[in-house]
Amino acid sequence: MKASGKRGQKGVQLSRRADDMPYSPIRKLASFADEAKKRGVEVLHLNIGQPDIETPVEIFEAIVHYREKVLRYGPSGGLLDLRLAVVKYHRNLGFNIDLDNVWITTGGSEAIIFAMMSVSDPGDEIIVFEPFYTNYNGFAIMSQVKLVPITTKVEDGFHLPSINAIEKKITSHTKAILINTPNNPTGTVLTEEEMFIIHKLCKKYNLFLLSDEVYREFVYDGKRQISALSLPDIEDRIIVMDSISKRFSACGARVGSIISRNKKIMETVLKFGQARLCPPTLEQVGAVAAYTNIDKYIKPMIDEYQHRRNVLFELLAGISGVYGHKPEGAFYTVLRLPVANADTFCQWLLTDFNHNNKTVMLAPANGFYSSVKKGVDEIRIAYVLQEKDLRKAVEVLRVALERYKG
Amino acid sequence: MKASGKRGQKGVQLSRRADDMPYSPIRKLASFADEAKKRGVEVLHLNIGQPDIETPVEIFEAIVHYREKVLRYGPSGGLLDLRLAVVKYHRNLGFNIDLDNVWITTGGSEAIIFAMMSVSDPGDEIIVFEPFYTNYNGFAIMSQVKLVPITTKVEDGFHLPSINAIEKKITSHTKAILINTPNNPTGTVLTEEEMFIIHKLCKKYNLFLLSDEVYREFVYDGKRQISALSLPDIEDRIIVMDSISKRFSACGARVGSIISRNKKIMETVLKFGQARLCPPTLEQVGAVAAYTNIDKYIKPMIDEYQHRRNVLFELLAGISGVYGHKPEGAFYTVLRLPVANADTFCQWLLTDFNHNNKTVMLAPANGFYSSVKKGVDEIRIAYVLQEKDLRKAVEVLRVALERYKG
Repeated sequence: MKASGKRGQKGVQLSRRADDMPYSPIRKLASFADEAKKRGVEVLHLNIGQPDIETPVEIFEAIVHYREKVLRYGPSGGLLDLRLAVVKYHRNLGFNIDLDNVWITTGGSEAIIFAMMSVSDPGDEIIVFEPFYTNYNGFAIMSQVKLVPITTKVEDGFHLPSINAIEKKITSHTKAILINTPNNPTGTVLTEEEMFIIHKLCKKYNLFLLSDEVYREFVYDGKRQISALSLPDIEDRIIVMDSISKRFSACGARVGSIISRNKKIMETVLKFGQARLCPPTLEQVGAVAAYTNIDKYIKPMIDEYQHRRNVLFELLAGISGVYGHKPEGAFYTVLRLPVANADTFCQWLLTDFNHNNKTVMLAPANGFYSSVKKGVDEIRIAYVLQEKDLRKAVEVLRVALERYKG
Repeated sequence: MKASGKRGQKGVQLSRRADDMPYSPIRKLASFADEAKKRGVEVLHLNIGQPDIETPVEIFEAIVHYREKVLRYGPSGGLLDLRLAVVKYHRNLGFNIDLDNVWITTGGSEAIIFAMMSVSDPGDEIIVFEPFYTNYNGFAIMSQVKLVPITTKVEDGFHLPSINAIEKKITSHTKAILINTPNNPTGTVLTEEEMFIIHKLCKKYNLFLLSDEVYREFVYDGKRQISALSLPDIEDRIIVMDSISKRFSACGARVGSIISRNKKIMETVLKFGQARLCPPTLEQVGAVAAYTNIDKYIKPMIDEYQHRRNVLFELLAGISGVYGHKPEGAFYTVLRLPVANADTFCQWLLTDFNHNNKTVMLAPANGFYSSVKKGVDEIRIAYVLQEKDLRKAVEVLRVALERYKG
């Protein structure tokens, strides 16, 4: 027996990473929303990235027609049919992707954590632009990697700062740059110039580029996303993390993918995948059907979101003190509000306010920054409501801001 | 720019954990099996823990009747209906478990990694008895925790060594003891005395007890597993990791659970869960139906496996030089073979041998040890074949051993 007596006295202790793991930033607000609903107030949700678009029926139909009698382990890298469908999807987009470049993951979430773990060890650094998808924080703590945030600003439409500003953050511990275009929470789509800067830095400093492209199709005004897959020369450094959640409004399916042309990365991701055996089988069967019918679904969905974004910004223009750019993609926007503390305001909306018995739930943007005290007067809006409800929600926000200021 | 030129010269590099991640131990053999099949040889699979028992039809039926039009994110801790079903299941077993003590995970795999990360940081140690479920290794490398193996022996039926032998391995870095009863790969079920030893050590040294109980029902000869949930006094130290994969022959569903009465553990697991959003929704819907109909399925399944185990050991008794105890549970056994190197033998079975155009695929046991050179003359058998095929497989093994020796 070699344990110190001291340890015995302290009692059972969780890990540091258990303590460090962040709570969901809207956790506190969620209980206030529940209470508001109990009081009979209608809560319009602009706070979550859960599309209201119907999931393709083909997903459900394919699962209904599943005929195996034993729901057995699938291949760790995903069902062959789905990998083939993902290859075809990429080829139709013009990317030179083979079967060897595709593994299926349990949601985009797993793709992110596998990518992080493939390129970094505890203490290594990954550069990320804030505000960013909050769960990057959680995955970094789980894998004990340090995220190094570079702040982007609402005044710049959350586009990247100068190459020098980014270069300054690169150290000998930097292993990768993590981008997300179109972006959650900002809706910003990186331009060709910005992708060129990222490309240049990854090449110069031998960094991996982790590219979260789950909103790839969600680009408006006839523009297109520039995928990391289209960057030349640094093919071995690019890891794309993807998901069917938003593309097919199938968030509950937990089907994602990792795309890379780096053989060692693909070998590593498969090793991680083997440890957890396989992604969910039935939902992969559904995903095949979704990809097969993709042409039916994408354009109407994008048209709908573009319309909602336009309606949202038309209405926001009528509210004084609200500041933000109309973003190029995804279905989010981060806005500066004329309030000192958006967190307090969002709480007040749920606890002390209603307009004709309606209120609105927003996500305070501070939770999307890893730098302390950034974004304290900002909120994220997810325009995942139909036009009628979206109009109601913005009207509620307008009245609320008037009353809050007064 | 602060990056060293040296880094630039080295080129892009994966993480150490990427290198450290083990390949699936049967990966090499799998390709030999494929080649054998191509040559027209029938390969009888005794190598994988994939039950051949039919999945309860109620799982598929429940999913067919799912009526939501949007497959949205479920709660991060799992569907309420499933958590309630899991509570009821535990209460029927006599355990005092509430809704607060249950989270649903994406397979037992995720339960294991969440449990490891909840109690340990990089460099911390978890004691585990080898041979053990190989994927513990992968999860430990992913979370950068050190597994400290204590070897159990085929001569002892893979039961635990003395309390002193275990106590010697406890250091100031030890955070937990990890047990798996009934055990994969050995089939061993820990006795009351052994559970008492574990209990005593966890209490004395303030260690967490991570208890993998996915084979809970698979105990034969009228005996019962002793769950960690039945241990008194150390309720705050116990984390049970569970899955529907084996219980309902639903490995592809990826539905597991974490059970703990430690509030902080449950809070931590939920935080990990929030980072990955939710487990797969449809397969959880199926799991509810499985638990509702559990009485129909468990007893016939256990009877079937007990029968197979008995047939297997009856047949093995007729093969000279094969050494092993009839295990108390699960559907595995680790046997010592009269060969110098089981890995070479298992490969030879697939590349150079057939008996009446049949051969057998076995898992070399070395992959289940983390100590180098342990178990080199041992194999794991999973008796997941119907009696007829099991008989064929053992006959093939008998002939193979005769010919290999000769």
